Amino acid sequence: MNEKMRFQIPAIESTADASLQARLRHKIDHKTKPLGALGALETLALQLGLIQRSESPVLQQPQMVVFAADHGIAAEGVSAYPQAVTVQMVGNMLAGGAAINVFARQHGFALQVVDAGVAAELPAHPQLQPRKIAMGTKNLCHEPAMSRLQAQAALAAGRDVMQALPGNVVAFGEMGIANTSPAALLLTRLTGTRIEDATGRGTGLDDAQLLHKQSVLARALVRHPATEPFDAVGELAALGGFEIAMMTGAMLQAASERRVVLVDGFIAGASALLAQAMAPAVRDYLVFCHRSAETGHRLLLACLDAKPLLELDLRLGEGTGALLAWPLVQSAANFLNEMASFESAGVSEK
Amino acid sequence: MNEKMRFQIPAIESTADASLQARLRHKIDHKTKPLGALGALETLALQLGLIQRSESPVLQQPQMVVFAADHGIAAEGVSAYPQAVTVQMVGNMLAGGAAINVFARQHGFALQVVDAGVAAELPAHPQLQPRKIAMGTKNLCHEPAMSRLQAQAALAAGRDVMQALPGNVVAFGEMGIANTSPAALLLTRLTGTRIEDATGRGTGLDDAQLLHKQSVLARALVRHPATEPFDAVGELAALGGFEIAMMTGAMLQAASERRVVLVDGFIAGASALLAQAMAPAVRDYLVFCHRSAETGHRLLLACLDAKPLLELDLRLGEGTGALLAWPLVQSAANFLNEMASFESAGVSEK
Repeated sequence: MNEKMRFQIPAIESTADASLQARLRHKIDHKTKPLGALGALETLALQLGLIQRSESPVLQQPQMVVFAADHGIAAEGVSAYPQAVTVQMVGNMLAGGAAINVFARQHGFALQVVDAGVAAELPAHPQLQPRKIAMGTKNLCHEPAMSRLQAQAALAAGRDVMQALPGNVVAFGEMGIANTSPAALLLTRLTGTRIEDATGRGTGLDDAQLLHKQSVLARALVRHPATEPFDAVGELAALGGFEIAMMTGAMLQAASERRVVLVDGFIAGASALLAQAMAPAVRDYLVFCHRSAETGHRLLLACLDAKPLLELDLRLGEGTGALLAWPLVQSAANFLNEMASFESAGVSEK
Repeated sequence: MNEKMRFQIPAIESTADASLQARLRHKIDHKTKPLGALGALETLALQLGLIQRSESPVLQQPQMVVFAADHGIAAEGVSAYPQAVTVQMVGNMLAGGAAINVFARQHGFALQVVDAGVAAELPAHPQLQPRKIAMGTKNLCHEPAMSRLQAQAALAAGRDVMQALPGNVVAFGEMGIANTSPAALLLTRLTGTRIEDATGRGTGLDDAQLLHKQSVLARALVRHPATEPFDAVGELAALGGFEIAMMTGAMLQAASERRVVLVDGFIAGASALLAQAMAPAVRDYLVFCHRSAETGHRLLLACLDAKPLLELDLRLGEGTGALLAWPLVQSAANFLNEMASFESAGVSEK
């Protein structure tokens, strides 16, 4: 294995700082509003301040990174769409026509698409980063999705992608037909959630197709017994996907650089779960953006003690939930930086 | 009564149009995403298209209007803050230091503050519209909050304020110490909600203060028996407030001009309820932006069959929930206008 491709979990500091937290709380509580009246935005402002070690956090050059990959398990009929849609949608994103392009333009995010392992050769494009580990994973019903070396290489590639990006905010999204399956498997393996609860309709399965998906995934879990002692890289190799692995490496790196990390939906949530298993302090840097109607996603977020900003019944991925929540993150920083205090405005307190 | 001040409910067209609706649904369903995958944004895109009678709605020159007024019932100790805070907060808004200023700047909304009936003389200011009906309402525990003539004048002033504004989107907010009390009373009177359920902690009452508020409001309902037959203006005069009345008139006028109306929290919701009682078709133009934790607000929204875009535990008013939801409204229009279709992008359908 190439030394460059070895992945070491980066050092991540907890953002805990009782003194700064008290100063931020004081600043928030003396703004011209009733105590707590900005609700979730106040919690978020506190988190932003702690991440940036500042009473006046500033969000700069936000980046959107979409990791794309294919999945051998698609051959089992676990998705409503054919595998070819992954590469087609990558093309759509590079042409600027996908939902994520629309929202990235709206909010001024630079957009990069990373080929983590799409099952096709992709022509070069200025917004495409070629980081292909393989032409999709293996079918994890029969063998591990990837080797340990591939898992390490994918984590390292995520780190490298992250290191090259400017700014102090990053949003992660993904594209990969069938990728709710590895996400459901990782949720089950990492949290003990029952596979029936972890498995949802993805982009649109009917009842019979959902039952089929559940039985395929239950079989896969039997095929790959839990590692003992627990081994996050081993579970990732057996049950994961290249985009999930790369996003995990990127999240860990982003946190080690004290960036704000916007976490999209179920697949990005599975990466967050893995990242937290590898380095619990990563949690301090994650802003959970959307909760979908899928039971698995709700359980995943509960395991991470996460209260997402939005609940809009999205089930698209790509990072759309993260970008739709972004203006709220800006609003949290803005009220902290710009609102008058009771004293400065001459307003009576309670 | 001055003829200019008489209020006639403007003609409001239903936005229903089966043919346009089918074309919009077709356009949405052929975007490069799974069917329904943009969730609440799809419902919103449909509503925007129907309001503007267009498959490509365009949102222009969004306006924020904050109606401010005082309430005689504040003398009963139903608010956590002294009445003087209304005029102080109006000053804070005109100086640019309130939460609503921060969010209006963030999202490019022009902001107007309307003095609907603040209990103080306000110095002239370019962003202040002097529409004072009186120095606050009367204490509705003892007499009607306002006369019928005043209610009519307030509704007409709201109409006039609206008519003078450019753009095709308007957000309404309010400022008025004690104004959750008239909102709770109107909710009870218009929907049959029990006053105990309609009454909440407002900006921060403790348990004993909440019980006191509930008993004050229960007494007020006895003091002003329901009109028979139902008379919206009569109920507004007995139980309402000047900012609530003016916002009601402005909502009706905005709908008659086919503008998109962003409805903020509990107080704006009470105006929406009144507007709907006067002209049911107004409902087609209303976008409900935020649901707070207050039971009364949840019940009010349920009565309007509204599923708000955000749920962030805000309890500030001013229009903050409306402006925080605004980027989602833009996103709904943007995906409809900018996303590629399966055909144009060469992506396989399900």
